[in-house]
Amino acid sequence: MEHKGKKYLCGVGVGPGDPKLLTLAAAETIRTADLVLAPTSYKDEPGRAEEIVKKAIGNIPIRRILFDMTKGKSGIELRKSAALIAAREIVNLLQPGGKAAFLTLGDPNVFSTFNLIANSVSSIDPGVEISSIPGIMAFQDLVSRTGMTLLDEEESLRLLVGLQVDSKIEEALMDDSSAVVIYKGGSNLSAIVELAKKTGRLAEGWIGVKIGLEESEVTTLQSVGDGPVGYLSTVIFPPKRH
Amino acid sequence: MEHKGKKYLCGVGVGPGDPKLLTLAAAETIRTADLVLAPTSYKDEPGRAEEIVKKAIGNIPIRRILFDMTKGKSGIELRKSAALIAAREIVNLLQPGGKAAFLTLGDPNVFSTFNLIANSVSSIDPGVEISSIPGIMAFQDLVSRTGMTLLDEEESLRLLVGLQVDSKIEEALMDDSSAVVIYKGGSNLSAIVELAKKTGRLAEGWIGVKIGLEESEVTTLQSVGDGPVGYLSTVIFPPKRH
Repeated sequence: MEHKGKKYLCGVGVGPGDPKLLTLAAAETIRTADLVLAPTSYKDEPGRAEEIVKKAIGNIPIRRILFDMTKGKSGIELRKSAALIAAREIVNLLQPGGKAAFLTLGDPNVFSTFNLIANSVSSIDPGVEISSIPGIMAFQDLVSRTGMTLLDEEESLRLLVGLQVDSKIEEALMDDSSAVVIYKGGSNLSAIVELAKKTGRLAEGWIGVKIGLEESEVTTLQSVGDGPVGYLSTVIFPPKRH
Repeated sequence: MEHKGKKYLCGVGVGPGDPKLLTLAAAETIRTADLVLAPTSYKDEPGRAEEIVKKAIGNIPIRRILFDMTKGKSGIELRKSAALIAAREIVNLLQPGGKAAFLTLGDPNVFSTFNLIANSVSSIDPGVEISSIPGIMAFQDLVSRTGMTLLDEEESLRLLVGLQVDSKIEEALMDDSSAVVIYKGGSNLSAIVELAKKTGRLAEGWIGVKIGLEESEVTTLQSVGDGPVGYLSTVIFPPKRH
């Protein structure tokens, strides 16, 4: 049901980096949008989502939205106020009847800036119609490159954030029937490797650093050493199969 | 590195049902493949992956591969021998230098027939080069339709199979910081609803039945009642946020 005067904001997942991992729906929505928005940390530099889309569908006009992606727990309040500033800018840009596509890496509903910004948009103008298009997540790309079977039969999956390496990660690795995915564990790699050793999972682990960028590396956890690697890293373990 | 005489088999994820949720890579691989294979339970009826692809990219030739998707633990041996029969057929169909695309619902490395069949293909002919293209999973589509934020900040995700409702599901629901996804829990819906009530999660739960089919339904868990629903159902809970 479209209303002439309504404003539309769609979070579009552009996948982890490979331009061909955009969905047909994402490409079409971006091509037909009245306005394409992309978050960036610096107004004069493209964010990663913008770069992916330019490779996928050419040099279309993209409006950069400044968003400070300050990391970690201490950054939550900063991110919230940055989201509110970004949301105000977006609400001002939206035209009645116009459709805006907001680009996000991976999936817009999984660790993305989109939900935070969309909530702020709704708080400013509850009339904006919000939707999203799912995108391929980094761990799926990594799994595919390793050739592993991530889940089979009645196995399960645990996906965790590795900004702190605590008992949750150890507990997940101790559950033999679970595949384990750890996002953002780059700076804690030695602690993750240690837990993987302790739980007998090291030999099956893989790590992807900067998945989707040209300098991406996919390697076994055993061969990567245990020094810190980039923030944008993904570690995966298949279930422990007997 | 392509070898003239090599045989290629690529598992192509076609997403959960909406033809527009194919990736650009999937569409291109299917269009340029020398042979497109799709699993089906009955040779004279198309499987779901075949139907999706025909809607997405038209009436291309698709070779149906019979694969008996007998469910549950008791079916494992049957599925393995069905996979071996399917793999023999595939190996015979592969031409030296030819590229075959094997269609799978969702993601080819997550609860898919592809891994099982690819392993059997490798056991028959280790020279076949196996690869895969990730696809959007049903739960991602469901999350997008509900408008929920699945994961934010340092939250985690647990994805489980609900063919048996046991302590693993209860334990997952008791972990407030985890989003929980339950696949294939349709026939145990009343037990899942009961656990959701017990853990204070019922009000936030959603269920998608036959996601991607035209008769798909997305509804809150509270409103669906607790009778059994279709096998192809997905239940999702966001983390319990305070």
